[in-house]
Amino acid sequence: MRSTPVTTIHTSTSTFAGPVQPRRSALTPLDATEIRLTGGYWREKQQLNAHVVLQHCEDWMERIGWAGNFDKAASQETGWEHAGIEFVDSEIYKLLEAMAWELGRSHDAALAARYNRYVHRVASAQDADGYLHTSFGRPWQPARYSNLEWGHELYSFGHLIQAAVAAVRTRIDVTLVGVARRLADHLWTTFGPNGRVAVCGHPEIELALVELGRALDEPRYVELARLFVERRGRGLLAPIEYGQEYFQDDVPVREAEVLRGHAVRALYLAAGAFDVAVETGDDDLARAVRTQWENTIARRTYVTGGMGSHHQDEAYGADFELPPDRAYSETCAGIASNMLSWRLLLDDGDPRYADLIERTLLNNIMASPREDGRAFFYTNTLHQRTDGVAPDESALNARALSSLRAPWFEVSCCPTNVARTLASVELTFATTTDSGLQLHQYGDFDIDTALADGTPVAVSVRSGYPYDGHVSITWREDTGREVDLDLRIPSWAGSARISRGGETPVVRVARSATLHGRFGAGDVVTVDFPVEARWVTPDPRIDAVRGQVAVQRGPLVLVLESTDLPRGDVNDVAVDITMSPTTTRTGASVEVLRNAQTPGGWPYGRQDHTTEPLGTVDLVPYATWANRGPSTMRVWLPVADRPR
Amino acid sequence: MRSTPVTTIHTSTSTFAGPVQPRRSALTPLDATEIRLTGGYWREKQQLNAHVVLQHCEDWMERIGWAGNFDKAASQETGWEHAGIEFVDSEIYKLLEAMAWELGRSHDAALAARYNRYVHRVASAQDADGYLHTSFGRPWQPARYSNLEWGHELYSFGHLIQAAVAAVRTRIDVTLVGVARRLADHLWTTFGPNGRVAVCGHPEIELALVELGRALDEPRYVELARLFVERRGRGLLAPIEYGQEYFQDDVPVREAEVLRGHAVRALYLAAGAFDVAVETGDDDLARAVRTQWENTIARRTYVTGGMGSHHQDEAYGADFELPPDRAYSETCAGIASNMLSWRLLLDDGDPRYADLIERTLLNNIMASPREDGRAFFYTNTLHQRTDGVAPDESALNARALSSLRAPWFEVSCCPTNVARTLASVELTFATTTDSGLQLHQYGDFDIDTALADGTPVAVSVRSGYPYDGHVSITWREDTGREVDLDLRIPSWAGSARISRGGETPVVRVARSATLHGRFGAGDVVTVDFPVEARWVTPDPRIDAVRGQVAVQRGPLVLVLESTDLPRGDVNDVAVDITMSPTTTRTGASVEVLRNAQTPGGWPYGRQDHTTEPLGTVDLVPYATWANRGPSTMRVWLPVADRPR
Repeated sequence: MRSTPVTTIHTSTSTFAGPVQPRRSALTPLDATEIRLTGGYWREKQQLNAHVVLQHCEDWMERIGWAGNFDKAASQETGWEHAGIEFVDSEIYKLLEAMAWELGRSHDAALAARYNRYVHRVASAQDADGYLHTSFGRPWQPARYSNLEWGHELYSFGHLIQAAVAAVRTRIDVTLVGVARRLADHLWTTFGPNGRVAVCGHPEIELALVELGRALDEPRYVELARLFVERRGRGLLAPIEYGQEYFQDDVPVREAEVLRGHAVRALYLAAGAFDVAVETGDDDLARAVRTQWENTIARRTYVTGGMGSHHQDEAYGADFELPPDRAYSETCAGIASNMLSWRLLLDDGDPRYADLIERTLLNNIMASPREDGRAFFYTNTLHQRTDGVAPDESALNARALSSLRAPWFEVSCCPTNVARTLASVELTFATTTDSGLQLHQYGDFDIDTALADGTPVAVSVRSGYPYDGHVSITWREDTGREVDLDLRIPSWAGSARISRGGETPVVRVARSATLHGRFGAGDVVTVDFPVEARWVTPDPRIDAVRGQVAVQRGPLVLVLESTDLPRGDVNDVAVDITMSPTTTRTGASVEVLRNAQTPGGWPYGRQDHTTEPLGTVDLVPYATWANRGPSTMRVWLPVADRPR
Repeated sequence: MRSTPVTTIHTSTSTFAGPVQPRRSALTPLDATEIRLTGGYWREKQQLNAHVVLQHCEDWMERIGWAGNFDKAASQETGWEHAGIEFVDSEIYKLLEAMAWELGRSHDAALAARYNRYVHRVASAQDADGYLHTSFGRPWQPARYSNLEWGHELYSFGHLIQAAVAAVRTRIDVTLVGVARRLADHLWTTFGPNGRVAVCGHPEIELALVELGRALDEPRYVELARLFVERRGRGLLAPIEYGQEYFQDDVPVREAEVLRGHAVRALYLAAGAFDVAVETGDDDLARAVRTQWENTIARRTYVTGGMGSHHQDEAYGADFELPPDRAYSETCAGIASNMLSWRLLLDDGDPRYADLIERTLLNNIMASPREDGRAFFYTNTLHQRTDGVAPDESALNARALSSLRAPWFEVSCCPTNVARTLASVELTFATTTDSGLQLHQYGDFDIDTALADGTPVAVSVRSGYPYDGHVSITWREDTGREVDLDLRIPSWAGSARISRGGETPVVRVARSATLHGRFGAGDVVTVDFPVEARWVTPDPRIDAVRGQVAVQRGPLVLVLESTDLPRGDVNDVAVDITMSPTTTRTGASVEVLRNAQTPGGWPYGRQDHTTEPLGTVDLVPYATWANRGPSTMRVWLPVADRPR
């Protein structure tokens, strides 16, 4: 796809669209009227989101007063106490965004009623000048913008604006759009060219303003985003213990070479900076963000796609500092990573971005929600050493908890972020260009769209993905002319067997395959990716996993969970890698050995240890771990010194 | 020594003594009149402490108002602002303790004048009822004991009491003793059998109260310590994000099997609990603490003796969770570890405790002070990946900084803790029993003491320790009867060649060697320990250093510092372990290879990498790293896959 990038110009003010709609891009994103999940893994997850997760988020935020903050703010009462930390407004906004994407697809009346009530409550809390925040600005509260380092006011506004953009793009509501416009105008006055030269401690407003500018065709909002991007990295934020890199105020965005500091902040900023670069034609800035992505992927990313190596500051570590047992890999960082990769993919079509989206989505992000949709991982460790304790399902949890998923958190950014991601997940599965259709992700979905010249593109994609590598693509309508069908060949696959209309399959070895031709109704293209489980070895510079291997099965990173061991935990096992892992229905099985117990005492200087076989053990998809109760777990498996 | 423990009874109210003076113990500690450093490594460090570190601490605490807090507290002014965090009083107290030990040895008049001024300022700030704290209890301050979780009031009191004990034991002052007594009586009233059932979030008061009870022969203080120990682990402290194990309020002390949570808290508590056990004859409690020590040494201790694997909460990790690049290994935790080991050693004489004291002292603790004594490491990482930046020598630093030593910290517990440790370090080098003398540490020092029956023990110990393994012990006075000379044989040595009076050396292979006989004036015993550098391999359960080796030379853990590399940093090197490291004057040299640069891009799944020789490279003692400017560093060295 990279070979023939096509530049298209979109104007999207009054059309359906997805979360990201650049004015210029190589690939044109689809909207929710053009692609719909029909079954399989993703339909199931999206339905769980629609029927369980959204309500779960509502229930919690009603119960603990986060939604009620807006009612208090709208009232004329004084001295009321704000519920939750400063930035819980943002959770309502992310829920509204999730609801909007869901409503745009389902038009469910009951959901619409719930949505409209929240929009009304939010709108009622807006000040006359457009400012809208429940924990700042009233006489008994901290003053507006008095704590840009930690107050997250503009971060919260960004999420409100993203929710409004979703309402515009799904055409479900105009109220929130008005709220967002008044808020953005207030920001223009306050922080624009004639305003205060400042930035928010937590990036997010940048990408939101660009998208609002795109959606409403308002260049001032893009310009304000540009100002925020350019101001960062110049020490405008006060020093903090974690250092200025925590909020990327250490180096100007266009001069940075790698993502650093707080992972979610870094990724939101990079996404917003790239949006600005695209809108303003700033190739230097775009190149800087691409370089940051490259270096971050090569040196600071876990095999699950997770990012963030430090619990202390939820931050990236140094290059190759990727300890599995202290992986922070916040769910929101995975989501933010995909937001960035999606922007980069749209811009130039390089399948590497779609590769990372797939990896991060299926492994890091989808590890967060529990099977029942009522509990979430905030952090996503790659090695759980102790069983941990099941959290109280009725209590708020500290965010660092990682042994079992928890229903809600004191800082509860992840559940609502998962909700908005699942509600719009299919919009990243395919794109078009003037010349044809690109499939970036596989699953069960129908596409009904048209190219710029009106050429109809109607296909049904079916597969057992992510477990099965067989994909069929059936054309439901004659294209009437020759078009390109671009198929991503995932890097984990390395090759694909592709057959068109019953012809003998051809093996294609590349990052993507292009099938050119006129496709008629009933034409079928089949693709087979080799999803057999295989050993994955790490770069030798990743100290923390030296002498260990992971197992990947198709797009899924697998995990050894103590639940599947005949006895004991995962902390002193090893695997025999002289034979390949055996592929099972959804995972794999491997030969596991246990280190014979070494004596206690000082653990340095002894050299002898022996292993004993534990037998064949199942590995399960990483994202499913801890769904069967407390367990120990590890992704990276020590290689047995002396194979049996 | 363990074979024949001897129980002695001490009463110490009015005699010279060291920091720990149990009523019952197998070994009798020496006081500062009985042992003195005469030269070599430790004399140099102790002189640096006396002439530089003490003044450095004073200067900082005057400049930033921590000392001035006492003057404000003593004044009748209201509304004054307290300088520094809540518990900075404790830094003055640790400085006073350090000064006391130094004064007890040097009787330096200028130092005595400085000391007396501080004592006066502290004493003037005491309330009529004995309470003494500069940041609690006044109308504009938080109420007394209103924040036991984080306020550290009793922690600060503990350090005042330890300073007072030093004053008693060195017989240099009585003022502070009176202050401490009034404070302890206040605590008895407030938290004693008829008082509030509570504990402090940071243990320290326990060991302090036991020692004050010993020093003043006051059983109430021991009883109050016992109450504090017994109350902990029962959920008396309010829940915090890090969990109750952070301050050891998760499990009662006598039921815990390993040290956990915040490392300094855990170790101070264990030391205090053991003191209580010794004083009350509580064998169950003593056994529990011994078990905790055993398990902690076997599973939760770095090769440097450092403890604490998490930056987030300065805490122990899970068993075998010992990442070198995230080693917190707080200097204060090393000091606290030695406080615990010293108590255990006195109690039963097992040389393993002295082994750990040596390791922790020479590697973890002595890594903290810079060569010039004007900057300190708070954390002691075992792998520094990036050069870092030299701190501003005139500014307060955040505690987590670990790339270079800093002059002072916002929480500055380590410099004053180093000061009191160095001021009394020699008091842990030797002990006596009724039957003779035990040497636990080696260096240059003279001992002049007498056994319980008056048998004179006067020896001069000389060595080039820790660099040279030759030790001579010259008797300066006839013992008049047969005595035992016990010599610890360090576990890193495994054996020693021992010669008495010019006899042919005998190799002894054990944890210790006992020479029995009558020693006459001029009799010489020589010991030679093999200090040659050797590879150290880790327990296979320590994931983070799998496939790596360390190098130890005598008691010193060595380190590869980028300063000694011909080019590049330490992050992609490997060592050839087919030959032994070459021992140098203070370190060693090894053959180093560098991984040929692997290509960028996704770092999982590629398997080929090659190495190229970098040549012979010097390793230096770990404790000396970063004395030559910013550098990268690693203790654990990846083993080259294919030796050249």
